[in-house]
Amino acid sequence: MLEHPDVLLGAARRLAQMPRRLAVIGGDAGGMSAAAVAKRREPELDIVVFERGAYTSYSACGIPFHVGGEVDPLETLVARSPEKHRVNGLDVRMGTEVVAVDLDARRLTCAHGSEERFDELLIATGARETPPPIAGIEAAQAARTLESAGRLRSAVDADPDGSAVVIGAGYIGLELAEAFVRQGLHTTLIDVADQVFGSLDSDMAERVQQAAEGLGIVVQLQTRVEEVLLDGDDRPRAVRTDRGEVPARHVVVATGVKPEITVAEAAGLTVGKSGALAVDDHQRAAGQDGVWVAGDCSESHHRLLGRAVNVQLGTHANKQGRVVGTNLTGGDLVFPGVVGTAITRICALEIARTGLSEREAQAEGLDFVAETVETDTRARYMPGAERLWVKLVAERGTGKLLGAQITGGETAGKRIDPLAMALWTGMDVEELQWVDLSYAPPVSGTLDPVLVAARATAKLV
Amino acid sequence: MLEHPDVLLGAARRLAQMPRRLAVIGGDAGGMSAAAVAKRREPELDIVVFERGAYTSYSACGIPFHVGGEVDPLETLVARSPEKHRVNGLDVRMGTEVVAVDLDARRLTCAHGSEERFDELLIATGARETPPPIAGIEAAQAARTLESAGRLRSAVDADPDGSAVVIGAGYIGLELAEAFVRQGLHTTLIDVADQVFGSLDSDMAERVQQAAEGLGIVVQLQTRVEEVLLDGDDRPRAVRTDRGEVPARHVVVATGVKPEITVAEAAGLTVGKSGALAVDDHQRAAGQDGVWVAGDCSESHHRLLGRAVNVQLGTHANKQGRVVGTNLTGGDLVFPGVVGTAITRICALEIARTGLSEREAQAEGLDFVAETVETDTRARYMPGAERLWVKLVAERGTGKLLGAQITGGETAGKRIDPLAMALWTGMDVEELQWVDLSYAPPVSGTLDPVLVAARATAKLV
Repeated sequence: MLEHPDVLLGAARRLAQMPRRLAVIGGDAGGMSAAAVAKRREPELDIVVFERGAYTSYSACGIPFHVGGEVDPLETLVARSPEKHRVNGLDVRMGTEVVAVDLDARRLTCAHGSEERFDELLIATGARETPPPIAGIEAAQAARTLESAGRLRSAVDADPDGSAVVIGAGYIGLELAEAFVRQGLHTTLIDVADQVFGSLDSDMAERVQQAAEGLGIVVQLQTRVEEVLLDGDDRPRAVRTDRGEVPARHVVVATGVKPEITVAEAAGLTVGKSGALAVDDHQRAAGQDGVWVAGDCSESHHRLLGRAVNVQLGTHANKQGRVVGTNLTGGDLVFPGVVGTAITRICALEIARTGLSEREAQAEGLDFVAETVETDTRARYMPGAERLWVKLVAERGTGKLLGAQITGGETAGKRIDPLAMALWTGMDVEELQWVDLSYAPPVSGTLDPVLVAARATAKLV
Repeated sequence: MLEHPDVLLGAARRLAQMPRRLAVIGGDAGGMSAAAVAKRREPELDIVVFERGAYTSYSACGIPFHVGGEVDPLETLVARSPEKHRVNGLDVRMGTEVVAVDLDARRLTCAHGSEERFDELLIATGARETPPPIAGIEAAQAARTLESAGRLRSAVDADPDGSAVVIGAGYIGLELAEAFVRQGLHTTLIDVADQVFGSLDSDMAERVQQAAEGLGIVVQLQTRVEEVLLDGDDRPRAVRTDRGEVPARHVVVATGVKPEITVAEAAGLTVGKSGALAVDDHQRAAGQDGVWVAGDCSESHHRLLGRAVNVQLGTHANKQGRVVGTNLTGGDLVFPGVVGTAITRICALEIARTGLSEREAQAEGLDFVAETVETDTRARYMPGAERLWVKLVAERGTGKLLGAQITGGETAGKRIDPLAMALWTGMDVEELQWVDLSYAPPVSGTLDPVLVAARATAKLV
């Protein structure tokens, strides 16, 4: 009987007294949380991390706040530097891109030609931008990595009276547009869709658009950017759209990102329908022993849809990294999946969602009811009370909560969390309306907005 | 066979073509929500409400904000006036105290002597203060009703440079002390206990005390008030305690309230161990047909303790009133109980709790672990991030969540709601740490504070 290569390698390693070696590709949330957990659990494990950029463990979610001048300097966004990781015993190789992986030989190749062996491999390569294939797009900026964020901020600082165009009106596009307005730029937000914030239903998205426009952002929907027009120095001067030209000294692409899976796919890992790497519930690459996946390049089990999706969020990356770091050191942790929770604050409006939107429920062919209530962030008589909208989607007949969306003033957003709990536990709106949620005049009306929404929705079920 | 009196009355009513009549004793949250729901569901129901005070449907929770000058005028705290209730078809009798109820005869007697018949009766008499039995206490103020709140505020307005003593350092005492400080009074908060905010564990309560002291409130614990000392006009000039005299132009009692059950008890209703009226899960007075109870005078099923407790909170009163209004008009609603959630904001510190504190778990003889984490209300690099503490209590072995306490800066408090959901559904901390709660830099670190706390607690289970 032929031995599995792993067994042979393990035997060889023991003979050579080489320590077991984990190679991590990607030095942000997924990769570094896995590395840190693994090192803590198994100090003798040899861990080498390959990061093609100049930063480890940074908050990509914080980039718009640096661009807008709220968070300075750029390095504030770094939770843990390569030096600190090295002090903890991790061999961190910065500016080192892995270009090929040979799973059978347990070796990987870096861009500068060197080869490295590994026993365990973690793919935590994150995601990459997907700029539209139009002329001049290479002159546009991005804000995906700290390096690109730093360049963008420098460009804004150098030319603070100019104009800006953000291509893509998703939540990152909105956040960047707000950042530009904060910096005093005349800012236009352009999207081909007929609404901003595509993961909200259009009724909720309308309030987001109003808030953006209230801040001075020009929102151009159903508009396609066809070309970035350059000046004599090959810098943007405008974008040409199917509805005319828009002046733009700064052009930023925020049309979404795709899982960065080039090397993993070439190495033979399975790519799921979502376009991200397929994993089992232990974050093991599908069908592979000793190969792990975490973060934005990984699929995640969606607990409501019952299938794998790709959700790119630091909080999932962090958890998945912990699952990997535990499992590859003899532990047994399951990543229990996601329910599609997201939150942001744009132009003083807090926005949150979890589960399925009405549109998504429709696309799934579900029979559902939906209801929106308008209420307040505090008792209405309290100074500082602001309006708040809660929209719920529930299964017709059973009343099972399918999704929730919230927009509103300060403190509105985090009210999505009890709704995420309801989705997680499969609660129906009939029960939800009775839950003992907190009440006091400075934080809600007599009935918490979540309860008010559940009650209104329960009537339709 | 003798007919039950109800049956005979019903027959007599039909013969006389008298409409079925509901009498409600008490015109605040419990009584009026029941009356409103019942009228909507059964417009021909004759509903008469007896309120001994001058206001209906008001927010007692908002009183400290009026005393402190944040909410003006007093009437702002009234959600619905007697006139508005009358427009909706309710017969509301103001300034009318019910002094006796004859359940067999289905008649009640008012203080001014008139008698009224009823078919269904709702006891929603709320609660009353329990001032300590000391000399001069009648010169102290209270802030339980809108009337007393109005008098207190007038007294403060008339004598704004004086000093104040609040007896009782529970959350209402703390809120009133803050109100006095806002009004410029030199304020001392006195309690016999060795900590403020008795429903928190002492480690969490210490932060509340620090916040109160930071605002200028003098906190005197383990101190017993023995007398309110009066001036020549029989107005307070000081309180004498077992630790000396404290000057006080204004003295307010906030030593807690008891269910107001005098009339109900005399009528033969069952009083539970908690001191409130015993009810079944439909808010029916124990063992009584056609007699209902809602609000602060009612017991509530505590889902964790598995027994009846008395929790006085507008949100429960509102829900229980709805249960009563539905059930007495042919509906079938169950009040599913409470888990002990409470929230407040004192001196810029948000404070919340749900379930059992460590002390309460100990008193129940439970085997538990407890852990506190210190984290932030936003990503640490965000402007406006404030410290936040989450304490969890979980059953040893199973990890089942037993309780949670939160103190911290703005937005800290409402984070208790996902924890209330976890208690409600019986979730353990091992699962809780993985839930898909919302994350974005303006509202939390990469892992929500609830998840961080669950993770830390799970390690001890």
